[in-house]
Amino acid sequence: MKGRPLAAIVSAGLSKFGKRDGFSSRELFAEAVKEAFDTCPNLDPKKDIKALIVGNMSEAFEHQCHSAPIMSDWAGILPAPSVRVEVACASSGAAIRYGLFAIISGLCDVVMVGGFEKMTNRTTLEATEYLAMASDFPLEQWNGATFPALFALMATAHMHKYGTTEEQMALVAVKNHHNGTLNPKAHMQREVTVEQVLSSRIIAKPLKLFDCSLISDGASCAILTRPDIARKYTDTPVYIIGSGHGTDAIGLYERDDLTSLKATRIAAKEAYDMAGLSPKDIDVAEVHDCFTIAEIIAYEDLGFCNPGEGGKFIESGAPTLDGSLPVNTSGGLKAKGHPVGATGVAQLYEIFLQLTGQADKRQVDDCEIGLTHNLGGSGATCIVHIYRRG
Amino acid sequence: MKGRPLAAIVSAGLSKFGKRDGFSSRELFAEAVKEAFDTCPNLDPKKDIKALIVGNMSEAFEHQCHSAPIMSDWAGILPAPSVRVEVACASSGAAIRYGLFAIISGLCDVVMVGGFEKMTNRTTLEATEYLAMASDFPLEQWNGATFPALFALMATAHMHKYGTTEEQMALVAVKNHHNGTLNPKAHMQREVTVEQVLSSRIIAKPLKLFDCSLISDGASCAILTRPDIARKYTDTPVYIIGSGHGTDAIGLYERDDLTSLKATRIAAKEAYDMAGLSPKDIDVAEVHDCFTIAEIIAYEDLGFCNPGEGGKFIESGAPTLDGSLPVNTSGGLKAKGHPVGATGVAQLYEIFLQLTGQADKRQVDDCEIGLTHNLGGSGATCIVHIYRRG
Repeated sequence: MKGRPLAAIVSAGLSKFGKRDGFSSRELFAEAVKEAFDTCPNLDPKKDIKALIVGNMSEAFEHQCHSAPIMSDWAGILPAPSVRVEVACASSGAAIRYGLFAIISGLCDVVMVGGFEKMTNRTTLEATEYLAMASDFPLEQWNGATFPALFALMATAHMHKYGTTEEQMALVAVKNHHNGTLNPKAHMQREVTVEQVLSSRIIAKPLKLFDCSLISDGASCAILTRPDIARKYTDTPVYIIGSGHGTDAIGLYERDDLTSLKATRIAAKEAYDMAGLSPKDIDVAEVHDCFTIAEIIAYEDLGFCNPGEGGKFIESGAPTLDGSLPVNTSGGLKAKGHPVGATGVAQLYEIFLQLTGQADKRQVDDCEIGLTHNLGGSGATCIVHIYRRG
Repeated sequence: MKGRPLAAIVSAGLSKFGKRDGFSSRELFAEAVKEAFDTCPNLDPKKDIKALIVGNMSEAFEHQCHSAPIMSDWAGILPAPSVRVEVACASSGAAIRYGLFAIISGLCDVVMVGGFEKMTNRTTLEATEYLAMASDFPLEQWNGATFPALFALMATAHMHKYGTTEEQMALVAVKNHHNGTLNPKAHMQREVTVEQVLSSRIIAKPLKLFDCSLISDGASCAILTRPDIARKYTDTPVYIIGSGHGTDAIGLYERDDLTSLKATRIAAKEAYDMAGLSPKDIDVAEVHDCFTIAEIIAYEDLGFCNPGEGGKFIESGAPTLDGSLPVNTSGGLKAKGHPVGATGVAQLYEIFLQLTGQADKRQVDDCEIGLTHNLGGSGATCIVHIYRRG
């Protein structure tokens, strides 16, 4: 059997993503938690859950740090001890990894992992500033670099080195928007065409509006257990069989190459090695498409195609729903939305649905192995997890 | 032998605490790390360290989140994967706990834990606002409650219920300031008298200026290993033998009793049970004296004395350097200073010095068992660790 189980996912929940006017993050988290509890009747939340590890990027949006106890409270699991982890947009990916450590340590039989971000209560300018805090203050923020600008540098380098085109980037948006129309929880539920993407206004050349992911509100959660007790809670567990965490220098100015992310390559290698698998074993993946170029680079760094061939990979149709390796069936950050702290566990949620046959109109046939890829900042952090159907 | 080792501390480092003009948190962290590396020559940082878990409360002070990769970089341990954990002032206490999980899981043989906060680059008003983010936004911050106000409510309740006096609270400040004069790394290096404390200006009645801990810059770190490999790195390891983490509702308005912190009682019970010890076994402790009343309540919640007798406990002299259970030999948050994210691991640092006989003028004779108690916010989070000399 491929991949020794490190932990089992026995339930998961996701709030509707979008502009959730009037809902604070604690309410969105409770919405995600309710789904996880409702679909796992054998779980006794107050008795069983031994820890909550919750990802959240920025205290600025709601002027609230120390949010972990609030989330324990609103999940109804007090006095389960809780902690927030933060590595920018990879915060809840890190929550999964530290949830795994807690499970494997033997000190916690059942843990909740999750994430949340409330963003649309702020103006786009404010959100852009808060997100920029994930880049280096003295040498990036201070000089006016925002995240679209940083990823635009990567896109330009990739175009220059490999001939990647704006049309190829647009195809990522077209694919993910299509998938989003099949996901009732997605923020954006409409198709876009290549022409619409190419003619949308420029944000940071060559990235246009439709190359960028969404500013969204949302929350996610999942229940992890020791593999040997998973069937107390569900007949259809999903096992986490690989975990990788890569860290690189925060600033682009410190990196040798802008066309590839070292943190992703490190995280992918660790996860594949732990699972005893290679890229060709992956049946379905959620990758961090904060910008369309990020998904193209992810194809390459995760080994789905060779370096420089990410543009051709999307052109070939391989990562579409009917392709050989469907990527971002949920709609991705691009269409499902990107409430940054929620994203890592939201990716897990989609893979959980796919591997348990609950993905409805976007179900990938006969998938057994899934992968999630969650970036922090401009790629100083990457968390990769690999999953197997139970 | 009392207490099965969960992990070993093989080295630790602490920056000078204080108003460190011109130093950013990454430089302070590097200062702490340098001490830990210099005193552990057998450690090969880049090769041995498998993860960094770093506590930091607020991205607001330096307009910087995603600080974990920066700290990996400035520690010189890239590509060691790093994550920030945040539970307000208990952030690096939580880093210790999640470092333990990583070690016990068997997936990491050596991890660095640490914490940092840069605070004095901001005005006191700004710092007060940022710290207030650790309380509930809609029902505490929004109504103007700052942390001195919240702890003043607890002090008032304790005085009303138990007859605790302002003089008793002042004695905590006197003791910790005295200890601070013996600690070259302490922010404040001067004695205070009961009269000075009582006559200092009122911040939030009954708390006066000298009842409050300091706004400081600083950083801390420690190297944890599997117990069985600790002697590769040092002849004098200190073992972590108990870990407890309690979480309670964030708002005072949700709690039954303002004179005791449930999160501390939960964390202490878990840690004592894990260590197989009771309060009478503790030889030296660092407790979270963010305000003098907090130390008095900690005496009671940790079982050093009975409920309501914390005032008498300090009056008796028991927690002084020459007493039966010296508390805050470092000077505590009150005199050593309280760069909030650094505090949890700074407490561990003091216990590491004490249990390895390196505490110089403040050395407690013949101590074998130590304890640290780290609060988040107004006590929604508490982390307790128990240590044994190797």
